[in-house]
Amino acid sequence: MSRWQPGARERLVVAAVELFTEQGYDATTVAQIAERAGLTKSTFFRYFPDKRELLVAGQETLSGLMVEGIAVAPADASPLEAVAAGLRSVSDAMGPVNRELGPRMRAAIAANTELQERDALKSVGMAAAMTSALVARGVASTTAQLAGELGMLAFKLGYTEWSEADPTSEHDLAHYTSAALDELRAASSRLG
Amino acid sequence: MSRWQPGARERLVVAAVELFTEQGYDATTVAQIAERAGLTKSTFFRYFPDKRELLVAGQETLSGLMVEGIAVAPADASPLEAVAAGLRSVSDAMGPVNRELGPRMRAAIAANTELQERDALKSVGMAAAMTSALVARGVASTTAQLAGELGMLAFKLGYTEWSEADPTSEHDLAHYTSAALDELRAASSRLG
Repeated sequence: MSRWQPGARERLVVAAVELFTEQGYDATTVAQIAERAGLTKSTFFRYFPDKRELLVAGQETLSGLMVEGIAVAPADASPLEAVAAGLRSVSDAMGPVNRELGPRMRAAIAANTELQERDALKSVGMAAAMTSALVARGVASTTAQLAGELGMLAFKLGYTEWSEADPTSEHDLAHYTSAALDELRAASSRLG
Repeated sequence: MSRWQPGARERLVVAAVELFTEQGYDATTVAQIAERAGLTKSTFFRYFPDKRELLVAGQETLSGLMVEGIAVAPADASPLEAVAAGLRSVSDAMGPVNRELGPRMRAAIAANTELQERDALKSVGMAAAMTSALVARGVASTTAQLAGELGMLAFKLGYTEWSEADPTSEHDLAHYTSAALDELRAASSRLG
């Protein structure tokens, strides 16, 4: 048997989120997740160190895509235009599975303090990654921090709206994150 | 012996931060913290459920002060003026002990993922508390979220500058959080 199982990672995530929804996070074991996915426990551990990491394992991938999008934005792009490019880069990588899992993942996270903490640190890490990518473009530190926070907020708001929208809608995630960033930019002129 | 020990809470925090700095968070036990503070373990548990909570126990107090400051800001205050009032309210409650402990607490948090996660959730909670207080004043949701994030960022930046400044400086924390908020407001006009 090959060590590499096609689609194994995604199957494990789907199985875990199903089980967390059905019986709660605490009551779910790695063995149950593997069984539901039709895989062995040792296959699980080739992808994730534990069930906790599973829910947030996409973080580094997402951060990497954001940073790449920001880095390759045109040299004359404003800080927020660069953030918009980062959001497009990460949004384009997310498809129907992510859309469907979103609300269930959020429910699992909302029900468990340990997961909330892990998720909060994930957000901090993603905002920091955006900030560093902007500083690398020559953006001043405070402006970069603010733009990083706006980018993270736009990602969260856009992702929530996308997964709550009518599933037959043609709009992809990039549409929603871009609209959220525009809304935040408009809101910043109303801060006083 | 009275169950209430004057200054016990603060002594426990100071002792814990000293021990975390000297020997690391993982190696420090509740018994050691209590001993260093000249108190018993059972006194420790009257104030904190465990050593992890100790570092972030001030969160609810801080959130409460911010919310109160935002709530009592003049009716015609802009969202950011209300946030500034919240920051003043929380900053005025912090004195020399907080200033001195700040850098050591940050070092302890930076050295431990578990504490980073707890701290990240604390920041999320404080930003959410500010957002809710603004929504209660009639501020639109997106504007309130943005103002809440700005307030949290200003609090962190201001606190860091305060604890790193020359200790003989006359400026209190409110000076630094207010300057940080002004800087963020100026930065928001450079986002593009």
